Amino acid sequence: MKKLWGGRFTKSAEEWVDEFGASISFDQELVMEDIEGSLAHVSMLAACGIISDEEASTIKDGLKQLKKKAENDELSYSVKLEDIHLNLESYLTELVGPVGGKLHTARSRNDQVATDMHLYLRKQVKVIIELIQEMQEALIDQAEMNIETVMPGYTHLQRAQPISFAHHLMAYFWMLERDKERFSESIKRINLSPLGAGALAGTTFPIDRYVTADLLGFEGIYENSLDAVSDRDFILEFLSNSSTLMMHLSRLSEEFILWSSQEFKFIELDDSFATGSSIMPQKKNPDMAELIRGKTGRVYGNLMGLLTVLKGLPLAYNKDMQEDKEGMFDTVKTVTGSLKIFAGMIHTMKVNKNHMEKATRTDFSNATELADYLSDKGIPFREAHEIVGKLVLTCVQQGCYLGDLPLAEYQKANSLFEEDIYVVLDPVTAVKRRNSAGGTGFKQVAIALEKAKALVNNKLKI
Amino acid sequence: MKKLWGGRFTKSAEEWVDEFGASISFDQELVMEDIEGSLAHVSMLAACGIISDEEASTIKDGLKQLKKKAENDELSYSVKLEDIHLNLESYLTELVGPVGGKLHTARSRNDQVATDMHLYLRKQVKVIIELIQEMQEALIDQAEMNIETVMPGYTHLQRAQPISFAHHLMAYFWMLERDKERFSESIKRINLSPLGAGALAGTTFPIDRYVTADLLGFEGIYENSLDAVSDRDFILEFLSNSSTLMMHLSRLSEEFILWSSQEFKFIELDDSFATGSSIMPQKKNPDMAELIRGKTGRVYGNLMGLLTVLKGLPLAYNKDMQEDKEGMFDTVKTVTGSLKIFAGMIHTMKVNKNHMEKATRTDFSNATELADYLSDKGIPFREAHEIVGKLVLTCVQQGCYLGDLPLAEYQKANSLFEEDIYVVLDPVTAVKRRNSAGGTGFKQVAIALEKAKALVNNKLKI
Amino acid sequence: MKKLWGGRFTKSAEEWVDEFGASISFDQELVMEDIEGSLAHVSMLAACGIISDEEASTIKDGLKQLKKKAENDELSYSVKLEDIHLNLESYLTELVGPVGGKLHTARSRNDQVATDMHLYLRKQVKVIIELIQEMQEALIDQAEMNIETVMPGYTHLQRAQPISFAHHLMAYFWMLERDKERFSESIKRINLSPLGAGALAGTTFPIDRYVTADLLGFEGIYENSLDAVSDRDFILEFLSNSSTLMMHLSRLSEEFILWSSQEFKFIELDDSFATGSSIMPQKKNPDMAELIRGKTGRVYGNLMGLLTVLKGLPLAYNKDMQEDKEGMFDTVKTVTGSLKIFAGMIHTMKVNKNHMEKATRTDFSNATELADYLSDKGIPFREAHEIVGKLVLTCVQQGCYLGDLPLAEYQKANSLFEEDIYVVLDPVTAVKRRNSAGGTGFKQVAIALEKAKALVNNKLKI
Amino acid sequence: MKKLWGGRFTKSAEEWVDEFGASISFDQELVMEDIEGSLAHVSMLAACGIISDEEASTIKDGLKQLKKKAENDELSYSVKLEDIHLNLESYLTELVGPVGGKLHTARSRNDQVATDMHLYLRKQVKVIIELIQEMQEALIDQAEMNIETVMPGYTHLQRAQPISFAHHLMAYFWMLERDKERFSESIKRINLSPLGAGALAGTTFPIDRYVTADLLGFEGIYENSLDAVSDRDFILEFLSNSSTLMMHLSRLSEEFILWSSQEFKFIELDDSFATGSSIMPQKKNPDMAELIRGKTGRVYGNLMGLLTVLKGLPLAYNKDMQEDKEGMFDTVKTVTGSLKIFAGMIHTMKVNKNHMEKATRTDFSNATELADYLSDKGIPFREAHEIVGKLVLTCVQQGCYLGDLPLAEYQKANSLFEEDIYVVLDPVTAVKRRNSAGGTGFKQVAIALEKAKALVNNKLKI
Repeated sequence: MKKLWGGRFTKSAEEWVDEFGASISFDQELVMEDIEGSLAHVSMLAACGIISDEEASTIKDGLKQLKKKAENDELSYSVKLEDIHLNLESYLTELVGPVGGKLHTARSRNDQVATDMHLYLRKQVKVIIELIQEMQEALIDQAEMNIETVMPGYTHLQRAQPISFAHHLMAYFWMLERDKERFSESIKRINLSPLGAGALAGTTFPIDRYVTADLLGFEGIYENSLDAVSDRDFILEFLSNSSTLMMHLSRLSEEFILWSSQEFKFIELDDSFATGSSIMPQKKNPDMAELIRGKTGRVYGNLMGLLTVLKGLPLAYNKDMQEDKEGMFDTVKTVTGSLKIFAGMIHTMKVNKNHMEKATRTDFSNATELADYLSDKGIPFREAHEIVGKLVLTCVQQGCYLGDLPLAEYQKANSLFEEDIYVVLDPVTAVKRRNSAGGTGFKQVAIALEKAKALVNNKLKI
Repeated sequence: MKKLWGGRFTKSAEEWVDEFGASISFDQELVMEDIEGSLAHVSMLAACGIISDEEASTIKDGLKQLKKKAENDELSYSVKLEDIHLNLESYLTELVGPVGGKLHTARSRNDQVATDMHLYLRKQVKVIIELIQEMQEALIDQAEMNIETVMPGYTHLQRAQPISFAHHLMAYFWMLERDKERFSESIKRINLSPLGAGALAGTTFPIDRYVTADLLGFEGIYENSLDAVSDRDFILEFLSNSSTLMMHLSRLSEEFILWSSQEFKFIELDDSFATGSSIMPQKKNPDMAELIRGKTGRVYGNLMGLLTVLKGLPLAYNKDMQEDKEGMFDTVKTVTGSLKIFAGMIHTMKVNKNHMEKATRTDFSNATELADYLSDKGIPFREAHEIVGKLVLTCVQQGCYLGDLPLAEYQKANSLFEEDIYVVLDPVTAVKRRNSAGGTGFKQVAIALEKAKALVNNKLKI
Repeated sequence: MKKLWGGRFTKSAEEWVDEFGASISFDQELVMEDIEGSLAHVSMLAACGIISDEEASTIKDGLKQLKKKAENDELSYSVKLEDIHLNLESYLTELVGPVGGKLHTARSRNDQVATDMHLYLRKQVKVIIELIQEMQEALIDQAEMNIETVMPGYTHLQRAQPISFAHHLMAYFWMLERDKERFSESIKRINLSPLGAGALAGTTFPIDRYVTADLLGFEGIYENSLDAVSDRDFILEFLSNSSTLMMHLSRLSEEFILWSSQEFKFIELDDSFATGSSIMPQKKNPDMAELIRGKTGRVYGNLMGLLTVLKGLPLAYNKDMQEDKEGMFDTVKTVTGSLKIFAGMIHTMKVNKNHMEKATRTDFSNATELADYLSDKGIPFREAHEIVGKLVLTCVQQGCYLGDLPLAEYQKANSLFEEDIYVVLDPVTAVKRRNSAGGTGFKQVAIALEKAKALVNNKLKI
Repeated sequence: MKKLWGGRFTKSAEEWVDEFGASISFDQELVMEDIEGSLAHVSMLAACGIISDEEASTIKDGLKQLKKKAENDELSYSVKLEDIHLNLESYLTELVGPVGGKLHTARSRNDQVATDMHLYLRKQVKVIIELIQEMQEALIDQAEMNIETVMPGYTHLQRAQPISFAHHLMAYFWMLERDKERFSESIKRINLSPLGAGALAGTTFPIDRYVTADLLGFEGIYENSLDAVSDRDFILEFLSNSSTLMMHLSRLSEEFILWSSQEFKFIELDDSFATGSSIMPQKKNPDMAELIRGKTGRVYGNLMGLLTVLKGLPLAYNKDMQEDKEGMFDTVKTVTGSLKIFAGMIHTMKVNKNHMEKATRTDFSNATELADYLSDKGIPFREAHEIVGKLVLTCVQQGCYLGDLPLAEYQKANSLFEEDIYVVLDPVTAVKRRNSAGGTGFKQVAIALEKAKALVNNKLKI
């Protein structure tokens, strides 16, 4: 079959150039969206009297047959026909004859492909939002079982102050909550119809863009036809949001990897999410966490790729923009897979509570308690800080911890120290006392958990 | 003066390490925000009975003196004191004595610096939103003078169909409108208070985080202290939104550069925004447009930089995060400058209307009209497309345009062609007839302009 | 078949986790390299007496059968077996029985996969170097036909000074020459053997790494086993070099797109490299140039992706590093395809010499000639520049070019002007006179072409 | 003073546009290179008879005065004069009168700025190579003291096999060696003279580019004037090489951070490279390692920034290219600082040998020894692997390590096990036995150290 746009050309293109230029190898992912868009378009053409009802009916029958075949994976595509649009149109014409050619009336591939991508991303972003919620629920579940599990809190990967393990997990809940917000807000920019923008300038046919927008469930239409066919902001926004999400997952991955090490031993990942070594029989590697941390790079790369593609492109459509799809598909696959894996890892991991708490008793992470203690008794914080610094140094030199120093030693450092410091130094006390809003005190953590559950139960209507 | 946290240390750091690690060379940009945050914090400490009203009053007097000095640019900073926080605290203690040390009660540099950045970005994003609106107004003004200015519309940088120049300009209005939306939505995530999160876990002091949040105009507080001190999403979101904005500006820059070339000659930029050559006296270079196109790279780089910094960081604060500031400051400066320049360039540029219209009469951008003409008379679009393709080829071979072919030639190609095709072929007719919603027809353009004006006049309350 | 490393595990992994973690969907690209590496490894094991000659012979027979099957595309792979290494080993054991299990003696997947990638990239980089040379030859061929073709030279996309078209094309020759240099230099870092590094620490078996290195054609071995299995610099270097190459191609793409526009009309691309529009019958779009410009983003993204993956990874192998392959494969495909397309485009494009030269006669790009003229007569260049600037302004105001101004007008501006300025103003004279080394003077261009031909004819032995 | 290129302009530019467009705020970094280049240029002009010896002498005197002032930091620069070139020229004219204007004969800012940057980067890259060597020497020094220090080797951050600490450190030596190679190779592309390329096309003056190239110590000249002024590959290559270097440093940073944690306790960084907390008196944070890990993002961002800037730019110079400098300066500063810090950290860190070795005795990292043991006795490796996997599981269930299992238990698993397995299981034995080339066996490590010392002592002549 000759190329559909070949009228003007005197020479046939070589096959390998065709292959380089064709998008069918990846844009077949959009087959359902393309058929859906065509069904709406043909209904509108008939409603507006641009084609007859009979013609519309014939074309729709053909499209529905194609849809069924696509669902059953019975369509095979040809590079000669470049893309999913021409492949489907060619199939359609085979099925219904020349009237199939009327489907492309008042439409261009430029507005058609934009429509497909809006439909595709709308669906995928909703799935992603649901998967974020599933991961949030997994965090809540683990957190609920660990409100009073005490672990060292870290800054600079140095033990800083003892905290509740639930509090640590829930930090990720709030990161995900922001991710969910951003994805949700992006929907209103995704859910706009470019259909009817034509090649770039609109069309001379008396179409009604609101009809197709309604049929396709769009909330509105693009107000400018040039913008409609050359806008890829909605994909950039998706990639930006995905990059931030993956960054969050990379941070939690790092923690899971650390916590699974023999040095930390805070958690044990379920065998389903770990693998062994072909050479070292004892290994149990946190592969899934590592892989997700690594896949962050892929998503960043997709973002940077599309930003580069779009930089400096004049209006309207340019062929460069064909490069918008693979990175989007790849990101959808990466993000959905990563979220699923994480929900599973969190649900099934074993928490070594005793080991965590033990860790808080063999370090200096209770030093702040002493400084606060002095400060509470009127010593300016900076001075208190310095006094305690010296006490820590004393311990280090003597090879002991703060709880091991006799009261006399304390009172030598400052006369305000009294017997009650030994209670203050206990890690569980330390956690409990951090009862400021959003703090790690058990009461605060319980309150925060209730807020989180309310947010998740009151699921977004999307 | 010795380092404030030096108690535990036995050795003084060498100067060049200090310099490498210090942030004062750039975080002094946050001086006002830091003082503002401290004023709120000290008020809260007194309100909660953590320090006495007298102490609070003394500290606030000191802070206000510092503020005045900062406004008059009378403060100089020391690398020895690392950052803006310690520099200011040191000044404060000089002014008010040891009581100054109480300011840091129930606060850590971790929540302090986060607070400063939230305050800073909230202010800057509002400025950026206003500057976007100014650029939108400039676009509207130029568009209103050019509704009926006809120019070639391009795809693939090939002339495609004639369009209204106003329509082309207004495509950028809608891009900017989305930018504005994204920046506006980001404010709710910027406008949250991390203050009171302490180093990572909250504090044992009976603080009230809602008091400081209110005093600082925040809409709410971070619900999790670990998240509060380690979250930099709000900066990433700012950099992502800025990257997309700069991408838009890079596209318009490219067009201004093309249109200013001797080949296009569609516009002439005002001398204020162009420069000459040190060696070629005739040159008038669209420097500002080029520079903004170039600065897109800088903003992309800042985004990629911070994404890289945050990848794989465990909770909570890590020193890596000090790298969050310079890219943010640089992006603020780049974006605000670029928007200002663009508003000026658009307002002052000279539009060569005659040259634009002439261009539409010496090409084949009216070919679609013929295809639509046939399609209208019942020929399936694909066939019509092929017939017209051959007519174009005939013209190319004869060295003429479609308007020059005699009717006989048309009728030889297809008997449905009639005398009225010569009207259809006129570029102005072509533009007028593209009257679908959002299309380039003059009526549609006028309608879209009214919508745009309504949006801009009804300015966001921010 | 159960997982090869499953001994330690009590639970079977769910299928979808397997799929997420498996690399077989893409690392099958390395099937030939993997077999090649195994053949060398088994030969060495026998040579060192680690396995018997008979065992080696059996295993090699099995591997050769697999190789034949792979060549005929008769192998199908299973996700359950994770990667190409385990898939092949499983096939091998099916073919030759349990002795197949001896192939993995003194080897780990960590050094095995690194070896595969070194072999793969060595081959591909050599192909790329050859393709660069083909594109260079295409540039030389076009340049030789256009030494005296005069066109406007541009800075800031403003016409600056007339130049030879050959000179412009040859600028890209030198960019490619640097690309070739960089790719060539990288080979010495690619062509090192990691085989024998084991999982991370070497092996207790008495292997000889130099034997396998020799058999596989490597120039040397990695000197440190930890480095051998965790180094991906050679891929990063490949991606960096590819990014710069693609940047060069993106610049030439931009020029081809500009030159193909109706406004420039400097060249016409062959139909094989251009496509039409589904809606606009007259369109001939420079699709291939646009697509290559766009694909630059993809390669940048792959670079950024791997840089991100590797950032902050502790030694030695981490699963994150599995993410090194897809970006590499994709870049190989993109770069080789782009170079092939460009060689073809350059060979077949039609150069509109007349149109180019005409352009040089209708602008002010000869203004520098006048400034040089005055400077030559002793006027400091800065003054000369200013005098000519005013003459240009006079022309602009009178609507003429410099060649149209009467001598009197010149002499009014400066008395040193004489009749011979009209010769100086001729664009062909202007080009000829820029005869400094590397300049655009025809003689210089011819000399440079000879140098270029010598470089290309004296092809690198790689 | 009015703008030097203002002749053609009718309107004065507003100040803020000037500021946005000016580069003087950062390109003043190039002041020495600019003067150096001018001195060579003026010598050449005289040698070629383009200006008189007297004029040359006057100009050179002026330039030398400027050089002295620059050395003493006595020059202040004006935004009105845009860049370092015009600022210096203006100073020169003040000093020597109108003859100063002759300096710009046969030169353009386009070739001038390119020359400056080549000179600058040549100098800086040489410094960086020396600093790499200093860091390599630090690694060698530490390694020499730790050849027989045994530590756990990791893959997936799980203990894999015991290794020599020297071996681990020396992995970084080889990474740095490749970095050094790449930087060294890049010099030949940096060390080329663009001077004499003029604005884009060469010049009509009878200059001799080889004279200036020689005077400036360049190895050759750019062969094509268009390429000379628009090439920024040498900066990209610098940024790519720097990105890979920083990636290496980020990996070592990560390890230093891990090793400094209370969980690992393998090393203690010197106080000079660590800092405390403003709130937690016990903290000793590995700030410098964290900061360098973070600064990796900055360098990646600079690379991505320039790649973006150059994408799709037509020849020759475009104002976008002014964006090439800040990222380069920033990267030089970051890389040199990071290397210096690292050399210091490595030299001064305290290695907890006992703690490292103890770690190897309380895990399963000796499991591979058992598998090798069986494999050595003729069991196919895959089977051996599985047998040992089960033994590990037995230990885990019994809460013991492999060395604790009685021989009977071993022999139950496989009858080939004998008494000597307890020697094989000793970590020190395990390390010693990995004596394959490049392996961790103490002998191999010592050999590798000698190779490394030879490489460093035989310093590159640069």
